[in-house]
Amino acid sequence: MNRRNFVRSTAVIGAGLSLPFSTTLASGTKDELRIGFIGTGLRGQGHLDAIAKREDCRIVAYCDVDPRMLDRTKELVSAHNGLRPAVYTGSEEAWRVMLAKEDLDAVIISTPWEWHVPMAVAALEHNLYVGMEVGGAFSVEECWELVHAEEGSRGKLFFLENVCYRRDVMAVLQMVRAGIFGELVHFQGGYQHDLRAVKLNDGKQPYGGGVEFGEKGFSESKWRTQHSVRRNGELYPTHGLGPVAMMANIHRGNRMTHLTAMSSSSRGLHDYIVGHPKGGPDHPNARVRFALGDVVTTMIQCQNGESILLQHDTSLPRPYSLGFRVQGTKGLWMDVNQSLHVEGSSPAHQWEDAAPWLAKYDHPLWKKYADLATGAGHGGMDWFLINSFVEHAKRGEHPPIDVYDAAAWMVITPLSERSIQQGSAPQSIPDFTNGRWVNRIPSFAIQEDY
Amino acid sequence: MNRRNFVRSTAVIGAGLSLPFSTTLASGTKDELRIGFIGTGLRGQGHLDAIAKREDCRIVAYCDVDPRMLDRTKELVSAHNGLRPAVYTGSEEAWRVMLAKEDLDAVIISTPWEWHVPMAVAALEHNLYVGMEVGGAFSVEECWELVHAEEGSRGKLFFLENVCYRRDVMAVLQMVRAGIFGELVHFQGGYQHDLRAVKLNDGKQPYGGGVEFGEKGFSESKWRTQHSVRRNGELYPTHGLGPVAMMANIHRGNRMTHLTAMSSSSRGLHDYIVGHPKGGPDHPNARVRFALGDVVTTMIQCQNGESILLQHDTSLPRPYSLGFRVQGTKGLWMDVNQSLHVEGSSPAHQWEDAAPWLAKYDHPLWKKYADLATGAGHGGMDWFLINSFVEHAKRGEHPPIDVYDAAAWMVITPLSERSIQQGSAPQSIPDFTNGRWVNRIPSFAIQEDY
Repeated sequence: MNRRNFVRSTAVIGAGLSLPFSTTLASGTKDELRIGFIGTGLRGQGHLDAIAKREDCRIVAYCDVDPRMLDRTKELVSAHNGLRPAVYTGSEEAWRVMLAKEDLDAVIISTPWEWHVPMAVAALEHNLYVGMEVGGAFSVEECWELVHAEEGSRGKLFFLENVCYRRDVMAVLQMVRAGIFGELVHFQGGYQHDLRAVKLNDGKQPYGGGVEFGEKGFSESKWRTQHSVRRNGELYPTHGLGPVAMMANIHRGNRMTHLTAMSSSSRGLHDYIVGHPKGGPDHPNARVRFALGDVVTTMIQCQNGESILLQHDTSLPRPYSLGFRVQGTKGLWMDVNQSLHVEGSSPAHQWEDAAPWLAKYDHPLWKKYADLATGAGHGGMDWFLINSFVEHAKRGEHPPIDVYDAAAWMVITPLSERSIQQGSAPQSIPDFTNGRWVNRIPSFAIQEDY
Repeated sequence: MNRRNFVRSTAVIGAGLSLPFSTTLASGTKDELRIGFIGTGLRGQGHLDAIAKREDCRIVAYCDVDPRMLDRTKELVSAHNGLRPAVYTGSEEAWRVMLAKEDLDAVIISTPWEWHVPMAVAALEHNLYVGMEVGGAFSVEECWELVHAEEGSRGKLFFLENVCYRRDVMAVLQMVRAGIFGELVHFQGGYQHDLRAVKLNDGKQPYGGGVEFGEKGFSESKWRTQHSVRRNGELYPTHGLGPVAMMANIHRGNRMTHLTAMSSSSRGLHDYIVGHPKGGPDHPNARVRFALGDVVTTMIQCQNGESILLQHDTSLPRPYSLGFRVQGTKGLWMDVNQSLHVEGSSPAHQWEDAAPWLAKYDHPLWKKYADLATGAGHGGMDWFLINSFVEHAKRGEHPPIDVYDAAAWMVITPLSERSIQQGSAPQSIPDFTNGRWVNRIPSFAIQEDY
């Protein structure tokens, strides 16, 4: 209690200060983390539910503008005994009131993409430990703003990229660190997910049933689809890039230097509207011209010579696949065929089932906590994400996925847009660490406790 | 006989003429095609053997500079009754003598890459029907030279891209033409083949056993490896590009407009030399610096909006895969997992085994000739390639894979090299058809006889 009051008062005092380097919130480990939620749509509800199940967190408040989502959240909260969080709503600025009024240690931001950075910056000004959901940025400047906000805060930015915690991805990271693939030279990843029924629905259910979006949509179709109307680029880079960035030691002895992007034609969403029983050629949305190419491919060069290929593919009928490929001088793993080849172990020139390798190199965290993670979102990986966030936040520790990672992964979006606008011209990727990537060392999933 | 003499005499008369458009060699179908071979290394021997088995061809002459390859060819020839071809050798210009002295209808060129275009140009000047093996070009100008040579000849250029005839590729082409994948938006292909034991051998056997190349190498290591020393680019684009170019109707209502390329670091060949029992860190070849990146990725934009991704990956341990992906508004096929997804037929968001679809859409040519093709090179596809070449040549018909295809596919190599030299800057792809792509219609594998 005393500790929390101490933190609170220094937070108030420090709100106007700008510190040259990030520091920890406080020494020692908090018994309880006081958390607020900005955004309780489906993703925020998932996080809130995960946090509510924990003994070491107290949900102090939450905030949203959508009455239907607030109803759902209220229902969720009532299913947990003893929760009495304050609710902030009624204005697009209600979250600012929550940040000003509530005594918080940490905040989790799960809002439409365009709100991520302004909200994170404000929360950092309150010296909070900030969990920010993923998405792409809108400008290079916005990414710098996020970096500068954290560098001037006693708070921290934990970028909530859950795929870094996927079981196979973490096993492959262990294999990479054990040298199984030799020196790495090439990576692939992406976001290949048929989101047509997410981007277009009936305004009542979150998935499918119609071809509405924007004001007439519900959940993600309310805000996400408009990005497909206006923008053409790698709009959602981090699920594919984050895991391989960790394997490539980006910002830990390596960095991304430049990229070039190319877009296919844009047909999928229009065809879906025209072909849907609730749509058709005369539906008003059949006249919408979607800017987003159905398949956007981005190539990224790294300082140490590696290439990274990203693919964004969310408007066509296709099976879900993040398209991972991790390739080095001794072999490679691909997830689309769930196979790998390791020289000297696999039969020459042949694929081998990846499963026994993934089991052998199962990450210690998964070995320890797999039972607890069962039933958590996205195959359990969300449990590890939230656990890592909470345990780091309780200790005020530097996040394993930090503000530099967030900035460099998110900046792929505006740079890919610019590259496509310029006929695939290469774009420099800023060094958001200002040279600190040279000496930083890996911290993600190094220790085995959280 | 009369017809052949007629063709021969008009060829001699016409050798100095430059005609504005390609014309057929002669009306009607030849009873017998008189063929010469330039280059009888392993690939040339394969073609010679295939031709020797046919009733409708006569092998008139062949030419090579390598005594060991000539010995092997002589042995091959002696296995066929009644063959008495003339042999040309002893100088790098011996093939010119062969072209001048022999009475040929057609020639097949299977030499190191740098000889393809000069030899094809000279053969076209003799008004021959030219089968030219695949490879990348060295300059944009070289590709124009090839085009101009054919346009000024009564001969024809048939580009011998065998993967266009692969059984699954032809079935997918049938599916594309049947609209199974809807409107196509994105393609992938490549040449992903661990060639380390091809590029480095013991100078006696064609595959492996040592780490020698160049003067001390044998077969492909004698000439191909030097390209990995000096050049960095998409060195072997056509196996991946050819099949998808046919599906995308390149030069038949579509064309490739520009590309950008990126290279990974170059580690594989050096590591192989150092780690090989006959090599080691003190072997002279351990000091060779290979320019070729282990994984080179190229993105190509098409006039009608499609994107094509190519990958060249020949210096690392990996299973063979041409990495095909054919994707449209109704689904996609990938060969690495031998799966596809077709909207409305496949379970939603799930892969389906491609095999039943490939069987259902088996190309009529494969249905008709699969038995004959059994045992031919590369899973039988070489039989279809040679059959198509001979049947088109006998009739003097326009080749289904023609000089414009050759030029545009081969030019990917020098343009990718330039893009990499310029930090992945985009490069325009010339329109070698000078606008004729607008009105040309598909001809590859349209008819069902050959």
